[in-house]
Amino acid sequence: MDEEPRSFAQWLEFLRIDRAHGAGQLAQLALRGMIDQARVVSAESTTDLITTLSAQAEQMAAVRPSMAPLYNLLTRWRAQLEQLHDADLAQARTKATERGERILIEAAFAGDRVADHAAALLDGHRTLITHSYSSTVLKTFSALRRHDVRAIVTESRPLYEGHQMARQLTQWGIGTTLITDAQLGLAVADADVVLVGADTVLADGAVVNKTGTYLLALAAHDKGVPFYVCCESFKQADTTQPHLEAMPPKELTAPDLPHLAIQNIYFDVTPARLITGWIDENGFRPNR
Amino acid sequence: MDEEPRSFAQWLEFLRIDRAHGAGQLAQLALRGMIDQARVVSAESTTDLITTLSAQAEQMAAVRPSMAPLYNLLTRWRAQLEQLHDADLAQARTKATERGERILIEAAFAGDRVADHAAALLDGHRTLITHSYSSTVLKTFSALRRHDVRAIVTESRPLYEGHQMARQLTQWGIGTTLITDAQLGLAVADADVVLVGADTVLADGAVVNKTGTYLLALAAHDKGVPFYVCCESFKQADTTQPHLEAMPPKELTAPDLPHLAIQNIYFDVTPARLITGWIDENGFRPNR
Repeated sequence: MDEEPRSFAQWLEFLRIDRAHGAGQLAQLALRGMIDQARVVSAESTTDLITTLSAQAEQMAAVRPSMAPLYNLLTRWRAQLEQLHDADLAQARTKATERGERILIEAAFAGDRVADHAAALLDGHRTLITHSYSSTVLKTFSALRRHDVRAIVTESRPLYEGHQMARQLTQWGIGTTLITDAQLGLAVADADVVLVGADTVLADGAVVNKTGTYLLALAAHDKGVPFYVCCESFKQADTTQPHLEAMPPKELTAPDLPHLAIQNIYFDVTPARLITGWIDENGFRPNR
Repeated sequence: MDEEPRSFAQWLEFLRIDRAHGAGQLAQLALRGMIDQARVVSAESTTDLITTLSAQAEQMAAVRPSMAPLYNLLTRWRAQLEQLHDADLAQARTKATERGERILIEAAFAGDRVADHAAALLDGHRTLITHSYSSTVLKTFSALRRHDVRAIVTESRPLYEGHQMARQLTQWGIGTTLITDAQLGLAVADADVVLVGADTVLADGAVVNKTGTYLLALAAHDKGVPFYVCCESFKQADTTQPHLEAMPPKELTAPDLPHLAIQNIYFDVTPARLITGWIDENGFRPNR
């Protein structure tokens, strides 16, 4: 984001409307927001501070219920807050900040490790196809860029996050082909491998990611192209029931007509049976 | 089209750039253009007329090589021209016109019959999902509209032909849901049946239609939703090798970046194994 939001209300609004970041990045930005709050929020005592921050973090996580990583990182931080009851108020603010920063460092490190594992696994593949925008997929391309790799990326309707993906890849000199989402079935046959990020990995291994990922997985399966998912372990949910967020219909800029409903669901679910394997910071886990 | 093109060159250009019509409609418009030519083209003799018209019709068919119906209707007319060598020039012009008009009437009648068969087959289904714009699918909805049917339609990138579909359906009072193409995998589970048109049906039953149709067929197969194709028999090709047209990259309105190629392939191929059955003016043909 160009201008960092400041107040808690501004943070909530930023998180609510953001489409430019994947769930992992957004979770880290949310924790960054809570670290800001730990410094500035009004509190009369340490317990008051902890209670207030914990409630705010809970509220923040609820803004994007599709995104398990938002919940996971903020919950990790809330658990650490509970260890600060013995500190005085000033110390508690400092420690809440430090614990948050440490979680952010671990999360960034996890992202780098995911990309290292993915790059090691995919080295030798010539053309990778992906869908939408993913920071871990981007990091993997960065690790592979000296190896003459090529990219196929989707525009990713309605808000074209894929343009951002294409911009970054081409800045690194990676030859990139941009397609409409509907061309995924054609283009997957031109790729050696599929690599996508995830907003959430469900307890059964199914992957919640930008709508269209399921179609890419079906096409990859049909054409015999391996389909890998790469993301940090903090994206794992303990449920098999995803919440799939609907976004404002106006994002489709469609005609406003009587009898017409516009559906704008941002995420779909790719079942584990269509996934060749999962990559996280601990390494590669093949399917079965 | 708002303003009917007149000269042969204008007809060619109209056919070349048109995205608003399906292949069947476009084939009929092309023949309408040739009927115009039969009236006005310069010719010194009947043989000269036949040779000129036949060459023009051949040239017209080559403008959109993806579209078998264009080739089929024009070839049917060219065969009839060859029967006119005994007529004088004025008679030959009149007969060439009449034969063309007869082919157009038969084509329109075939389209109506397709829709009748499709409506009879699908009556009782509550929600139909389709992709892009198809005049035969529209006619089927028209036949079903008293039966409380609902529609799910895609926007159909890059030029949003689905908006035209939605506009017509909602004018008939049919409750319609518009989705991005990428939501096909989600939305197919909300439908009882898939009905799509075809630009061409290949000799092995595979269907060439607007890009994304193959993804819809994969999702329908995965979710157990029947997938029907409806089109006139003049859309059948005698080849199994489709030509898939690429259109101008600028239609995607994507950023212009070094190292970035933009791919805009308009049609994909849905293999017969994903198709529940085909409907043409002669009736319904189930798969196997």
